[in-house]
Amino acid sequence: MVEHVKNERSKGTWLTYRPDIKILDCTIRDGGLINNHHFTDDFVRAVYEADVAAGMDYMEIGYRGSKKIYPPGEHGPWKHCDEEDVRRIVGDNPTPLKLCVMADAERTDYREDILPKQESVFDAVRVATYIHQIPTALDMVHDAHEKGYEVILQLMAVSVIQEAELEEALPILVDTPVSAIYLVDSFGALYSEQVRDLIVTYVKAIEGTGKEIGIHAHNAQQLAYANTIEALIMGASRLDATLNGMGRGPGNCPMELLVGFLKNPKFHIRPVLQCIQDYVLPLKSEMEWGPKIPYMITGQLNLHPRTAIEMRKSDRPDDYVTFYDKMMEEE
Amino acid sequence: MVEHVKNERSKGTWLTYRPDIKILDCTIRDGGLINNHHFTDDFVRAVYEADVAAGMDYMEIGYRGSKKIYPPGEHGPWKHCDEEDVRRIVGDNPTPLKLCVMADAERTDYREDILPKQESVFDAVRVATYIHQIPTALDMVHDAHEKGYEVILQLMAVSVIQEAELEEALPILVDTPVSAIYLVDSFGALYSEQVRDLIVTYVKAIEGTGKEIGIHAHNAQQLAYANTIEALIMGASRLDATLNGMGRGPGNCPMELLVGFLKNPKFHIRPVLQCIQDYVLPLKSEMEWGPKIPYMITGQLNLHPRTAIEMRKSDRPDDYVTFYDKMMEEE
Repeated sequence: MVEHVKNERSKGTWLTYRPDIKILDCTIRDGGLINNHHFTDDFVRAVYEADVAAGMDYMEIGYRGSKKIYPPGEHGPWKHCDEEDVRRIVGDNPTPLKLCVMADAERTDYREDILPKQESVFDAVRVATYIHQIPTALDMVHDAHEKGYEVILQLMAVSVIQEAELEEALPILVDTPVSAIYLVDSFGALYSEQVRDLIVTYVKAIEGTGKEIGIHAHNAQQLAYANTIEALIMGASRLDATLNGMGRGPGNCPMELLVGFLKNPKFHIRPVLQCIQDYVLPLKSEMEWGPKIPYMITGQLNLHPRTAIEMRKSDRPDDYVTFYDKMMEEE
Repeated sequence: MVEHVKNERSKGTWLTYRPDIKILDCTIRDGGLINNHHFTDDFVRAVYEADVAAGMDYMEIGYRGSKKIYPPGEHGPWKHCDEEDVRRIVGDNPTPLKLCVMADAERTDYREDILPKQESVFDAVRVATYIHQIPTALDMVHDAHEKGYEVILQLMAVSVIQEAELEEALPILVDTPVSAIYLVDSFGALYSEQVRDLIVTYVKAIEGTGKEIGIHAHNAQQLAYANTIEALIMGASRLDATLNGMGRGPGNCPMELLVGFLKNPKFHIRPVLQCIQDYVLPLKSEMEWGPKIPYMITGQLNLHPRTAIEMRKSDRPDDYVTFYDKMMEEE
């Protein structure tokens, strides 16, 4: 159990709000992992317009994935986010919404594919890295920063990082030009007490630097929203969410729950609900996301959801016991 | 924010467990609110056998509802829990699983219908009361206690009880022969910080009495499980859950999540998963439960889910914006 941290970030009561809170909508980026980023322009435009109307701070519109690793065609346009594809949706983005693209360490040709900022409609690059990829990630951070972007860092799968490694990694990440570092619960394995402890560690690491801490949660154990508000209370100010929780496997923190919780008048729930009912819900017949028992099992075992995702595509998607037995044998 | 309470109830780390934890499965009782308690004998027997195999402490098999208010036929057998109906399933219940029946204040003919314990297969009576019904509830508690039962108290809809009223009510409830008092979030409106504060208040009220505190959560905001483990950490030891979260509207804390979290070797997840896949899931085609946006809206507004339940039965169950606008106008 941890003591609650009281710092300038964690102020805010039931009636006040924290102006430092920033929401990033990663519906297209994370949801695209379900359908290889084959969203229609209409869908992406509807999400963009909803984010603008709802007062979101950032929209992550997809990946800058390597075309050698992810051939176009097999993968839809939001796996690469070519400037002309993005501009077809947002024009020059004459709105306060910042556009963000994710670049995965070792799965992006960042030197060539990330253009100088003045040639791009993007505002920010999020560098996603597993702990063993940090040297590559650091090079990506500097490259994107030098090209003029805000750079955000996602340290993935924190539930399998040893405490000593994390203590070593954080100062290295803080000592870069990133604006924010995210706690990423890739497997949806963390309980609220663990989130609270970890956020304390992250907040301590950035103290005095002006950088911010974020949270990206997965809903394997129906804790994505709960853990997001715990992180918020403990000092995180960058919050990831998706419309209706759309995202790979169990999905993410549902935007509608988060906006309903925040008292910040800059966010509006009505455009979120409208977009969900008009655009997101109809996709439920062709894409699956959200908490399901197989994801719960991988979450409880602190494992990547990939085996559960495969199982849900098999001819026995509800044979939980056989799946449970198999996962326990592999433990 | 509250200080964490450290008392003998809240011990337990990631590797140890708390032997004081008791789970009550209210699948049939709360789930019956969806189908007027018209479950088949086969279904009720499957849940009973799963609870025995999973090591549950209590199974709440239904209500002792007044037959004048709830005519048999219109309501299935688990609305009244006549002894012969229950014995058809459990015989004399030669297991460690305790059987519990719920009696709602003002909706039960408790003097006549609750038999002396030696004539009954039930072990415990749960008295459910709104705060304005406490005088009736106290009479029910004494009646059941004198007849020989363990008596448990559910103080309903705590999210709309004023703090001063709660401070007045708790000592009155503690000063009765109840074994446990439950925090009941009827509307699924509470956030984890509120649960933590309230559990501290409840735990303080029972200090030195040997009584226990429980939690019954609803999943309107996908917080039923999260709030249940928060309550547990703060000192609650009686936990309500249902198979796959089955229960009225957004449903309850899912048993499979809770058992996966607890390290207590007396609980087993496999029989829970087996019963869900064989018996609970097939009911999904005829009964709806679980988090949905209309329940989120009533939860966020701290309202009873009844309007959302009606809306889900209408011909526009996914017109969230119209429902949201209507609820905001009624605020």
